[in-house]
Amino acid sequence: MRLVQLAELLHAELRGETADQAREHEISEVASAKSATGTSVVFAQDAATFSQALSSPAAAVIVPTAMGEDANVLKPLLLVANPRLAFAHAAQLLRTEDAHPVIHPTAVIDGSALLARRVSVGPYAVIEPDAKIGESSAIGAGAVIGQGAVIGRNCRIYPRVVIYSGTELGDHVVVHAGAILGSDGFGYVRDDATGEYTQFPQQGRLIIEDGVEIGANTTIDRGALDETRISRGVKIDNLVHIGHNVHVGKDVVIAAQTGISGSSIIGANAVVGGQVGIGDHATIGEQVILGSGSGVLTHKKVHGPGVVFWGRPARPLRQYLKELAALARLPEKEAAEKPAPKKSAPKKFARKKPEHEKD
Amino acid sequence: MRLVQLAELLHAELRGETADQAREHEISEVASAKSATGTSVVFAQDAATFSQALSSPAAAVIVPTAMGEDANVLKPLLLVANPRLAFAHAAQLLRTEDAHPVIHPTAVIDGSALLARRVSVGPYAVIEPDAKIGESSAIGAGAVIGQGAVIGRNCRIYPRVVIYSGTELGDHVVVHAGAILGSDGFGYVRDDATGEYTQFPQQGRLIIEDGVEIGANTTIDRGALDETRISRGVKIDNLVHIGHNVHVGKDVVIAAQTGISGSSIIGANAVVGGQVGIGDHATIGEQVILGSGSGVLTHKKVHGPGVVFWGRPARPLRQYLKELAALARLPEKEAAEKPAPKKSAPKKFARKKPEHEKD
Amino acid sequence: MRLVQLAELLHAELRGETADQAREHEISEVASAKSATGTSVVFAQDAATFSQALSSPAAAVIVPTAMGEDANVLKPLLLVANPRLAFAHAAQLLRTEDAHPVIHPTAVIDGSALLARRVSVGPYAVIEPDAKIGESSAIGAGAVIGQGAVIGRNCRIYPRVVIYSGTELGDHVVVHAGAILGSDGFGYVRDDATGEYTQFPQQGRLIIEDGVEIGANTTIDRGALDETRISRGVKIDNLVHIGHNVHVGKDVVIAAQTGISGSSIIGANAVVGGQVGIGDHATIGEQVILGSGSGVLTHKKVHGPGVVFWGRPARPLRQYLKELAALARLPEKEAAEKPAPKKSAPKKFARKKPEHEKD
Repeated sequence: MRLVQLAELLHAELRGETADQAREHEISEVASAKSATGTSVVFAQDAATFSQALSSPAAAVIVPTAMGEDANVLKPLLLVANPRLAFAHAAQLLRTEDAHPVIHPTAVIDGSALLARRVSVGPYAVIEPDAKIGESSAIGAGAVIGQGAVIGRNCRIYPRVVIYSGTELGDHVVVHAGAILGSDGFGYVRDDATGEYTQFPQQGRLIIEDGVEIGANTTIDRGALDETRISRGVKIDNLVHIGHNVHVGKDVVIAAQTGISGSSIIGANAVVGGQVGIGDHATIGEQVILGSGSGVLTHKKVHGPGVVFWGRPARPLRQYLKELAALARLPEKEAAEKPAPKKSAPKKFARKKPEHEKD
Repeated sequence: MRLVQLAELLHAELRGETADQAREHEISEVASAKSATGTSVVFAQDAATFSQALSSPAAAVIVPTAMGEDANVLKPLLLVANPRLAFAHAAQLLRTEDAHPVIHPTAVIDGSALLARRVSVGPYAVIEPDAKIGESSAIGAGAVIGQGAVIGRNCRIYPRVVIYSGTELGDHVVVHAGAILGSDGFGYVRDDATGEYTQFPQQGRLIIEDGVEIGANTTIDRGALDETRISRGVKIDNLVHIGHNVHVGKDVVIAAQTGISGSSIIGANAVVGGQVGIGDHATIGEQVILGSGSGVLTHKKVHGPGVVFWGRPARPLRQYLKELAALARLPEKEAAEKPAPKKSAPKKFARKKPEHEKD
Repeated sequence: MRLVQLAELLHAELRGETADQAREHEISEVASAKSATGTSVVFAQDAATFSQALSSPAAAVIVPTAMGEDANVLKPLLLVANPRLAFAHAAQLLRTEDAHPVIHPTAVIDGSALLARRVSVGPYAVIEPDAKIGESSAIGAGAVIGQGAVIGRNCRIYPRVVIYSGTELGDHVVVHAGAILGSDGFGYVRDDATGEYTQFPQQGRLIIEDGVEIGANTTIDRGALDETRISRGVKIDNLVHIGHNVHVGKDVVIAAQTGISGSSIIGANAVVGGQVGIGDHATIGEQVILGSGSGVLTHKKVHGPGVVFWGRPARPLRQYLKELAALARLPEKEAAEKPAPKKSAPKKFARKKPEHEKD
């Protein structure tokens, strides 16, 4: 793509002393200043990254409008409101799609499965009866698409993903390797007479709406009797667990290793940090921000657009910080009040040889 | 199955004004009130769910005996002591098994492996030398059953499960997609001269007893020199980690993303919440309940049947709650005692642009 | 291997009253005292394990030099400085390699991929164009080696591992089943106008240096624009998440279920416990020890060789213990100061039926 074309597609103003000569330059990729070549475009957000960008071999630099207007530089600049966003868009525009969708001859595709035009299927993928794959979607090597599963258009299913029977994906869904979609929820009924657990029926569905992206080795369970739903635009990191009957609202972001227990509701535009734990039947309000590692208890509701919650149990950040600070002062305060107790550190913490150095 | 048959198998009393006419009704499935059809059976536990059930098209409702005896309704009722348990049993009774077990022609099954009658093997599954698969067990697409592994009867191994060499599963074991059974434990010996780690031998076995159910992408390591053992009836959720040499007692329940370090012992009937962390060589007593997110330190013992532990480090719930409450009051208390310190909130918490919005 | 050979290779002194007669004894394996046979070697570190070892049928016992010199026993002893390390080395010396490397006929290996001598490839493995596999490396059943990926010599890739395009592994790397290497990082740019997230380009590389070992179902993301790097000798447990652009220093140990967010740096020889959470752009100093379950905030730096940090947020262990102890005393202290508040335990903790017993 020529630089002038890229500028147009990004709605960017092209500036810089050499910009006119550079209009026809070929741009092949986005890059960091460190890895840029003469056909790369890079971006800058502040003085430091701008300086790095200018001294790189990059063909052009995407910069904030104000910064670009003030600059007096040789290198062509692309002036935009949000350089990171423009850079991300540039990456998409420059991405070269696989030219020829191929259905590998080793793929096992049931005769009743429906594959639309331009579908790719990798080696040893398995597509079970009555599954439907939409136009231009790609199924990676060794993925298993269960009976009756539906996958929309332009989806990318990476290798070794397993999609259980009855799961439904919208369009433009990306699922990274090893993710498991539609597995049985964790619901059991105990027989008080015997102490044994019997599985509560886990026969519902999992619905993943358009534009959802799911990280590697993440697991999302089907509904028990009804559905689990991941709404449009949700982004989910690696090793996340989402239980049965959960509803995740539009454009929610969930960072790695977070777990959401059964029947909880996450409101639209919420931001959930990494390693967060959400108990069952909890409700997270729209636009709530849950700090990393925080915990929301069973049946609890937290809400307030833009309000940040932190800690276990999660409480408003301001309160959490006050408690942390007060706790940090407590030992000194105690010591000032009275002679220190003989044993201030519990013995149980005595450092033992760590497990990785044991049998 | 006819309604009267189902009632008999559930030891349920059939009631309701139309019960007599409905005895021969065909029942095909369990369902929620929301998804029920004219051949569904649903269940109710309280007035609200009973009302929903009655206004659904379901053929019959499983209810607690007392509630059913007091009701004066048209719809057929099945009166039982524990409706949830009866509903779960109904689901099992109504489940239709795959009629014809099939060994897919693409499965690679070593000539020395022993497959009993009615075994199913999915496409691209791999069964290594000397493995044994018991009667009526099903091996999913792309699963790998390692050399000498033993799988009992009526087991269901979902797609892409990997069972390492030397692992042994009892009967009626369910393993969800992506789970890894029998991988090497995390044990190393450091050479103080070089700082390098050498693996401590991880050559033991993993024994999974009858009736165990294991969630998607869960990992359970083999013993280092001896065994890791998961006892009869244990239920394990998704993304759980169980280290080498761990012994999990009978009918223990372990929720998602919990990690149990090497050589720990979990007593029978314990309930372990989600995201719990248990250090190595710890002992959890029988029937102990570990709240979600709690942590038990290396070499620590916690016990007391029915006692709930919470927090990191885990302490009895009552004590934990008192500490939480006292901590919540601490900032105000401090403020009342003396002028507030100049800086009550540590700067390090200043909100930064979250990672998912960065490069 | 004969006992005298093993002693030589371990630089061990052979002692015990029967040592001379036992020099030619065949040793076939390392074992625990419990599982030992007449051709096993076991080890002991203290009086208790020494006593077990002596009463076992093992052919010889590896013991600390001082313990062995004082002992007056029949059984042959191997005297060494570090018995655990010698035992681990013995296990390696006694390991029998698979005699014949085999490339299974069902493996799909692109014509442009380069396989060195003695490479094994399991059934249904997929090796994409331009990938390179070094001498004596083994690729497990169903593993997927992406386009242009490089794997060094003597690597062991277990079944169902997925290595994304552009990832590079050094020599002697072990990757357990289900691990995902080189997946896209979790980086998005929000369009404030629409609220939608666009992926920030995730096109960098993942470099894994020599001697790294990676646990089952662990995920490591590629760099966004540049690289993620796991340095020489690093050991990573199961279900660990390592984000994009992270650099992990030499001989770091990372226990199970820990998560490291994007662009963080872990110094050489650090020890990271299980379920630790490290925010993005954090720095962990060389030789720092992070206790299990601890959390390091975004952009935070912790350092000090040998210093142990614990808690969320992580603080020096001594301080953390003081705070814990002071917190434990707080409720009593409050009660002594004034009448107890009417309600000491927040209602939100009232025990509800746990999720696994619900629908």
